Amino acid sequence: MRKIGLSEIEDIAVGAALLGAGGGGDPYVGKLVAISAVRECGEVTLLDPEEIPDDALIVPIAMMGAPTVLSEKAIGGNEYKALSKMVSQFFGKEIYAFMPIEAGGVNSMLPIAACARLGKPMVDADGMGRAFPELQMVTFTIGGMKATPMALTDEKGNTVIFETITNKWTEELARSVTMSCGGSVSVCLYPMDGRQLKQYAVKNIITRSQQLGKAIRELKNSAEGTPEEAFYKATEGYKLFKGKISDVLRETRDAFNFGKVMLDGIGDFKGRTAYVEFQNENLVAAVDGKIVCTVPDLICLVDTETFTPVTTDAIKYGKRVYVIGLRCFDLWRCEKGLELVGPRYFGCDTEYIPVEERSKGVYANV
Amino acid sequence: MRKIGLSEIEDIAVGAALLGAGGGGDPYVGKLVAISAVRECGEVTLLDPEEIPDDALIVPIAMMGAPTVLSEKAIGGNEYKALSKMVSQFFGKEIYAFMPIEAGGVNSMLPIAACARLGKPMVDADGMGRAFPELQMVTFTIGGMKATPMALTDEKGNTVIFETITNKWTEELARSVTMSCGGSVSVCLYPMDGRQLKQYAVKNIITRSQQLGKAIRELKNSAEGTPEEAFYKATEGYKLFKGKISDVLRETRDAFNFGKVMLDGIGDFKGRTAYVEFQNENLVAAVDGKIVCTVPDLICLVDTETFTPVTTDAIKYGKRVYVIGLRCFDLWRCEKGLELVGPRYFGCDTEYIPVEERSKGVYANV
Repeated sequence: MRKIGLSEIEDIAVGAALLGAGGGGDPYVGKLVAISAVRECGEVTLLDPEEIPDDALIVPIAMMGAPTVLSEKAIGGNEYKALSKMVSQFFGKEIYAFMPIEAGGVNSMLPIAACARLGKPMVDADGMGRAFPELQMVTFTIGGMKATPMALTDEKGNTVIFETITNKWTEELARSVTMSCGGSVSVCLYPMDGRQLKQYAVKNIITRSQQLGKAIRELKNSAEGTPEEAFYKATEGYKLFKGKISDVLRETRDAFNFGKVMLDGIGDFKGRTAYVEFQNENLVAAVDGKIVCTVPDLICLVDTETFTPVTTDAIKYGKRVYVIGLRCFDLWRCEKGLELVGPRYFGCDTEYIPVEERSKGVYANV
Repeated sequence: MRKIGLSEIEDIAVGAALLGAGGGGDPYVGKLVAISAVRECGEVTLLDPEEIPDDALIVPIAMMGAPTVLSEKAIGGNEYKALSKMVSQFFGKEIYAFMPIEAGGVNSMLPIAACARLGKPMVDADGMGRAFPELQMVTFTIGGMKATPMALTDEKGNTVIFETITNKWTEELARSVTMSCGGSVSVCLYPMDGRQLKQYAVKNIITRSQQLGKAIRELKNSAEGTPEEAFYKATEGYKLFKGKISDVLRETRDAFNFGKVMLDGIGDFKGRTAYVEFQNENLVAAVDGKIVCTVPDLICLVDTETFTPVTTDAIKYGKRVYVIGLRCFDLWRCEKGLELVGPRYFGCDTEYIPVEERSKGVYANV
């Protein structure tokens, strides 16, 4: 058990931008929401999953929809209160703690705001260890857990409770309502007990996120070699490419951002080319036409000077970036995991091969 | 209190096709659903609204979406059970009786099936006295009543409960879910107590529907003049036109059927022309370019030989029809009623003038 205050939030936000793997939205707006909640209502208690009683009711809380809408549609305290009431009424039981559903992007920040405003603790765990675009894409689905009863509310006060036959149906129906509500809503889903949490959640991911953020903040003062070396050490990342963005193709389809980033090599990679394809999050990275990393491993773009994560929204012609591969949470690499979030699910016609294997070829070609 | 059995269902179905004013779907498929439920589970008790205790929980039950989908997606008994359970759990109270939300079309029949299967009585009342395309278009909205809590289920077993800030928002959100569920779902909405029922419902409309159906069935044996004369007497209808369908324009937009029927006069109306515009239900009828009837009054097309109602789905080139105007339920003619379902709501740029005034011109021009 420890406290999350303003300085922790700053570091978690940077780490969450990295774990967003290009998607999940820029945590900046989420950070402002979290900071103002903590300023107003006090620090949030972060619980280690092992501290949670087996029969405690634990509820992931998140926003669903386009993170970009957040900057236009404020999130007030009423949504959290409404969701909390709906869920505890449904179960006839008090909520013990909330948790994030994803560690990457905006959804790393909103649970902090919710916990501050509701005076509840937050669990140091999530269901992805990164960000993914669809709500069935959580480790809980691998564990056979249901996304429902799922509670949804918009900022106007409309509320909906779903109970569905599969998590894919939850995604389908909740997505429709989200669109009708203006593109972004607040939700509670995958309500679970402490036992399920400890079995299937990605544990201590908020602490990991904070460590990543802190490491990036301190790179310049690193005692261990260059900032770049320190970065790889802290993130355990695989260097896939260094390049200048030469083109970005974007397409919005079915409320997702699809696209492809083209890169011309610089430094070690001069004379070579690469591309990264994304659907909200980065899906596939290829160097000289050869795939070097795919989902569910994380493909992250970071600024070559500051190592600040670059989300897909912020990609621009001329920007210089490193393309980094990070190992995903182990559970994603099982057969069920790859069915849910492997490259084929996203329409990439290739096998999943772990980034530590895939990326071996990169330097062989230099 | 009386019983609804197979012969009553036959007559109610014909009356409901007339009150559908072109829309609400052909009650034929609904009739089959009602008949098989009554055959299997016994007749349904029909209660007069005045028999309902003030504090009884009364729940309209209906299908939402495209009635044409009904013939492809069967309605089983599970939907009714699921809805009933959701609503009584929500209120912590037993449902006293169900009722139809609309008297026209398919939704006149499904509550009979639900009541037969659930062993519950049905109230002789509805919320429209006809059919309308959107769920906020009920007399209960005029009474300031809320559509929510609204329960929705599909035939697969997905369930949703809505609580919204306005009935227009209920329509918006439930319509999205309906589309995602394949275009047709079963719903309970506008739950109310006996007091509200007696104040705002269209009373005894099922009995009215049955009388209309019986009258149409017996026209040929009428002792009171020609079948046509007997028809106007029984329906209190205004004869607007007699013609042969010369063209039908159809367009499906936002899950509604829009269109326009063109007619060439025959008999008394030889040499004259008319058109009828519809959005699921008929909206406006004009003779020689002059509007003779608009919503919320009912515009009904009936076969010139059998006086069988012709729904918009069944309109075909060459068919000979009478165009009939029927007075709507009085409450629709108030300011609030016309805001909800007057011609301007449907995009027809004209004032509402009651059919008894509008239609005066028809014969003046002959």
